[in-house]
Amino acid sequence: MFNLSVRDHFMIAHSFRGEVFGPARNLHGATYVVDIEFERPELDPDGLVVDIELARTSLKRVLDSLNYKNLDDVDEFKGINTTTERLAQIIFSRMAEEILEGALGQEAKGLTSMTVKLNESHVAWASYESKL
Amino acid sequence: MFNLSVRDHFMIAHSFRGEVFGPARNLHGATYVVDIEFERPELDPDGLVVDIELARTSLKRVLDSLNYKNLDDVDEFKGINTTTERLAQIIFSRMAEEILEGALGQEAKGLTSMTVKLNESHVAWASYESKL
Amino acid sequence: MFNLSVRDHFMIAHSFRGEVFGPARNLHGATYVVDIEFERPELDPDGLVVDIELARTSLKRVLDSLNYKNLDDVDEFKGINTTTERLAQIIFSRMAEEILEGALGQEAKGLTSMTVKLNESHVAWASYESKL
Amino acid sequence: MFNLSVRDHFMIAHSFRGEVFGPARNLHGATYVVDIEFERPELDPDGLVVDIELARTSLKRVLDSLNYKNLDDVDEFKGINTTTERLAQIIFSRMAEEILEGALGQEAKGLTSMTVKLNESHVAWASYESKL
Amino acid sequence: MFNLSVRDHFMIAHSFRGEVFGPARNLHGATYVVDIEFERPELDPDGLVVDIELARTSLKRVLDSLNYKNLDDVDEFKGINTTTERLAQIIFSRMAEEILEGALGQEAKGLTSMTVKLNESHVAWASYESKL
Amino acid sequence: MFNLSVRDHFMIAHSFRGEVFGPARNLHGATYVVDIEFERPELDPDGLVVDIELARTSLKRVLDSLNYKNLDDVDEFKGINTTTERLAQIIFSRMAEEILEGALGQEAKGLTSMTVKLNESHVAWASYESKL
Repeated sequence: MFNLSVRDHFMIAHSFRGEVFGPARNLHGATYVVDIEFERPELDPDGLVVDIELARTSLKRVLDSLNYKNLDDVDEFKGINTTTERLAQIIFSRMAEEILEGALGQEAKGLTSMTVKLNESHVAWASYESKL
Repeated sequence: MFNLSVRDHFMIAHSFRGEVFGPARNLHGATYVVDIEFERPELDPDGLVVDIELARTSLKRVLDSLNYKNLDDVDEFKGINTTTERLAQIIFSRMAEEILEGALGQEAKGLTSMTVKLNESHVAWASYESKL
Repeated sequence: MFNLSVRDHFMIAHSFRGEVFGPARNLHGATYVVDIEFERPELDPDGLVVDIELARTSLKRVLDSLNYKNLDDVDEFKGINTTTERLAQIIFSRMAEEILEGALGQEAKGLTSMTVKLNESHVAWASYESKL
Repeated sequence: MFNLSVRDHFMIAHSFRGEVFGPARNLHGATYVVDIEFERPELDPDGLVVDIELARTSLKRVLDSLNYKNLDDVDEFKGINTTTERLAQIIFSRMAEEILEGALGQEAKGLTSMTVKLNESHVAWASYESKL
Repeated sequence: MFNLSVRDHFMIAHSFRGEVFGPARNLHGATYVVDIEFERPELDPDGLVVDIELARTSLKRVLDSLNYKNLDDVDEFKGINTTTERLAQIIFSRMAEEILEGALGQEAKGLTSMTVKLNESHVAWASYESKL
Repeated sequence: MFNLSVRDHFMIAHSFRGEVFGPARNLHGATYVVDIEFERPELDPDGLVVDIELARTSLKRVLDSLNYKNLDDVDEFKGINTTTERLAQIIFSRMAEEILEGALGQEAKGLTSMTVKLNESHVAWASYESKL
């Protein structure tokens, strides 16, 4: 099994609802350093898992849709806690759409699974992984 | 599949028995930077893999039971080599008990697997992973 | 010259004013991983730059005064941009007060300079350094 | 499941063929920081995944066969793109041979899978993973 | 004193001349992860060391002039060893020109020194630092 | 000013004396990841700060004199606390001797200062820096 990963980041504000969150119920924020991993059983004819430049461009487009925002004000996220693990899943879904729409090239259809990891500090990170 | 990881560390002395260990048969020591990863297929009602503060507290309690010790003097470890990989398994077991006892909260019963990784230097690390 | 550094982090929301900030004029946020370095020409009688546990406790107290806040709502910061470099200076000042008040122990009076570095992502960080 | 990983590196020149590579079709180069992970279900009688010194020595021998070379001039690689993901597979194969030949010791026959990860920069890495 | 740093990277091929270089006299290559640090005694009116977006753009332009090249074929480097430390100085000079030409904005004239660090692997890095 | 750094590590047991050390008065241990930085105002005729292979070999020799030891049993350290900051100074002194004895080559006489940093965990490190 082959994997390729690229890294980028975004910075948002948000707050959480629920006793479990303690002081994180206040409006605060985070830098998320994002590692996205693409997986496939065989390389494409160029010897690649995916075109790395297209993958970077797609990831940047997806992160730009979140970057420099207060997630509490985003309609789509009303009523959900935008925890690190949930954001990983949201980014996964948007990247999966990018693949389906061909933004990562025709060969990206050979990708079989993907993992999105969000590093929120030097001591905590979360990820969402699924088949494609 | 969702994952959440937290990092902490502990510092111990120990020595090994067996030809394969060479100079590591002398009493020496190590800093272990510990990454513990929790996994579950769906998030809990708060949108979490696990309550991160409870997870941190439990991990600290487990590491405190080893921290600042000479493992050669710990009864439980008599006759075994406390290699990095073995220590990962020992910490896994103690964390699994914490989960069973409810220390990570009721929702932690939804966790399906766990990985304990011990980073012993910038060039070597080991882990133990199992279903819960 | 001897140095000792410890690391911790905090997470805040804020926004900036001024053309130069582009999309960062929106309310967003950041995780800041903080490295504080203490310097002195000779070690204290225990062989230390500073009591590391007191240093950690002081740093945590200072960061807790900022953690999980929207800095735009903090009176003290009205009218200033809480850029990474400015926050480094603010934390420096608060840590310098901690030292003056004796929170890092009597021996901390031998410290001659200090640097506060804030890592805001994997590709950007800023610091403030000064004599004490 | 137990894992042990060790890290080393090598530095090569190469170029790629194919539109997808853009400016990387020019002769350029890379530092690859290599993480090799060994996996087995149970530890050996010494409490190890593998003899770490033998593993390091084998990995270094394999990397020395590539280090400080222009891969475009290596007969074995004529006609293939030595992408990061392909190089991960090549190193995997050579390490698998080392294991078969006994270079990692008799106990290494208990290894069940292996992953070779090549870090090419702070924002990109690739890996090849397979059963042994 | 205030500092701001940004990180980027480039990938080149080259070879060295001189007994001291051993196997590095062969054509090989490197990924250089570049950290550039800007220093000034007081922040500008926006609360910044330098406009980070302009700094990133300038650094990328400078690195693009080297990226994906065989440095042995670049006229400017004929007769010199493009060691990591020398490349740090070369990038420093080009960035200093960018500042002089106004590419980092008018406020960048307040910068008093700069450091360029090139990370060539997980175990080696070099830098050049000078007043501006 | 030019700098070159190399990284290596060693693993020791020790204990401390004095109230300030709390539980660290027990026999425990540490992995120290060592970064040694060499500085000089001009490069040598080969374009180097120092011969990196000789520097690595010297550093390894110095670290081997401490590696896999219980420092409490080393005569030279009787009566002193082998704190991270003190160990940084001890390694500095031994490396300075290596330079004086010519182990880093004739050109190493042009080195003007050196810094030894010991990373003891992901949240603490210390260093000693001096002119040569």
